[in-house]
Amino acid sequence: MRAYLDCYPCFVRQALTAARMAGADESQRWSVLRRTLEMLQSFDLTATPPEIGTVIHRIVREDVGDGDPYVEVKAASTSEALHMYPRLREMASEADDPLDVAIRLSIAGNIIDFGLGDRHDFDLWNTVDRVLAQPFAVDDRPAFFDALEKADEVLYLADNAGETVFDRVLIELLEVPVVYVVKGGPVLNDAVYEDAVAAGLDQVAEIIDNGAATPGTIVQFCSDDFQERFAKAEMIIAKGQGNYETLSEAGPRVFNLLQVKCPVIARDIGKPVGSIVLKQATESIQSR
Amino acid sequence: MRAYLDCYPCFVRQALTAARMAGADESQRWSVLRRTLEMLQSFDLTATPPEIGTVIHRIVREDVGDGDPYVEVKAASTSEALHMYPRLREMASEADDPLDVAIRLSIAGNIIDFGLGDRHDFDLWNTVDRVLAQPFAVDDRPAFFDALEKADEVLYLADNAGETVFDRVLIELLEVPVVYVVKGGPVLNDAVYEDAVAAGLDQVAEIIDNGAATPGTIVQFCSDDFQERFAKAEMIIAKGQGNYETLSEAGPRVFNLLQVKCPVIARDIGKPVGSIVLKQATESIQSR
Repeated sequence: MRAYLDCYPCFVRQALTAARMAGADESQRWSVLRRTLEMLQSFDLTATPPEIGTVIHRIVREDVGDGDPYVEVKAASTSEALHMYPRLREMASEADDPLDVAIRLSIAGNIIDFGLGDRHDFDLWNTVDRVLAQPFAVDDRPAFFDALEKADEVLYLADNAGETVFDRVLIELLEVPVVYVVKGGPVLNDAVYEDAVAAGLDQVAEIIDNGAATPGTIVQFCSDDFQERFAKAEMIIAKGQGNYETLSEAGPRVFNLLQVKCPVIARDIGKPVGSIVLKQATESIQSR
Repeated sequence: MRAYLDCYPCFVRQALTAARMAGADESQRWSVLRRTLEMLQSFDLTATPPEIGTVIHRIVREDVGDGDPYVEVKAASTSEALHMYPRLREMASEADDPLDVAIRLSIAGNIIDFGLGDRHDFDLWNTVDRVLAQPFAVDDRPAFFDALEKADEVLYLADNAGETVFDRVLIELLEVPVVYVVKGGPVLNDAVYEDAVAAGLDQVAEIIDNGAATPGTIVQFCSDDFQERFAKAEMIIAKGQGNYETLSEAGPRVFNLLQVKCPVIARDIGKPVGSIVLKQATESIQSR
């Protein structure tokens, strides 16, 4: 999905939020702002939002400094989700259709997202209740179940820290082995290796990183090793908006699981903000 | 009040909204976006938000075309407010303190604002109820009443169409003659001469325009005639956020009446979004 015009105010906001989270002083914030404005002016119009986001986060690293500004926020999200974990697991196992409930829980966890603004108060239990009761706005579950039955292995592209715990509940119910893919370096509150281990994903999956510190999955920016596994994968579960933005046209092996949290993605999918989506990717572009 | 860092995402959004309202096609919208990004990058850091907004609206006029894109929106706001007018007038005249109620009604009308986003659903009666009951977050009413008693004439700087009708209720209760100042050309949904006449302001005040098509009141951009009247005025009532942004430091003759509708102004005033404010301007800058 290429960036829409309405993404641009959000890019500027993201640059300011990322600079602030990285501890930028006033003059560093102005520098990040100006470089972002300059970059946005000249950027390729066919770029996806995470491609542009990648440059924004590079500017912040260059102007403010390296490190993982979201490390505490991520630890808090993981800890909160781990407190919920026993009950979440019970909810799935006691359900008439455990897999359906676990898919929904994994989508519920996608509400955790610090890329959207300054909101730090995700009401996780309310979100769980809503997502368990809500109809799918896009429902490719039949194709999803079909692919699950045929696959010998699933590549599971993680999104945010904390959401990882919700993914774990789903992965525990899958009969097929899962390779859980995290980011190669810190970007926003996206899970890196340590975040996935802290959430216990090492107990249910092989964890690898994609070699890239970008939002979503920009395949050509990832490590050779990841690109090879991506190319060979029979089935790919891609969590969250960033992975939708980068992989919505990556072909029918890819299933995007997400909550619609921004108006631009809502328009692209044709469903309102708040929708829950399980969508098989189309084929128009192999991967971006 | 100079523009803050957090104004910049909003400037980009305003450029896109103004282009859309002016009927821009996709390529014109991209052109407006790019020119806005370029302009923002190089703009004077001490500029007020309306000074930057003025350049945005100039870009839209150059790229998309002249005219008054908000003409229908303004007519609808005026018509809705005129339907409320008899009851508003009654509410003030029947009150124990008619002037206090009329001041609050004038502030309630400030909720009408198409510069903030795509919201077109102002719940005017609910706003009236809220503002009548709400304590002032900044309350310079004593100085305001004092100035009213001493002034031989009041310069009343209008804000948006529709809000004009709420101003009319206040002006009818003032014993001192009022000069009602509208914009010299269309910008957002700010009232121009025709809008003020449609709202019946010609029945209660002398209407003049300030010679400028800018948000707020950027005195040095206004006509010589207006600048002269502004310089001589004993008391100036300045409605809305744009006039706060441009005149909050224009000296104690100026009284800003507004609702706080954006987080940046909330921070500048030190009061939360949703506050109602009657604030005497400080003196640090004579006028911007």
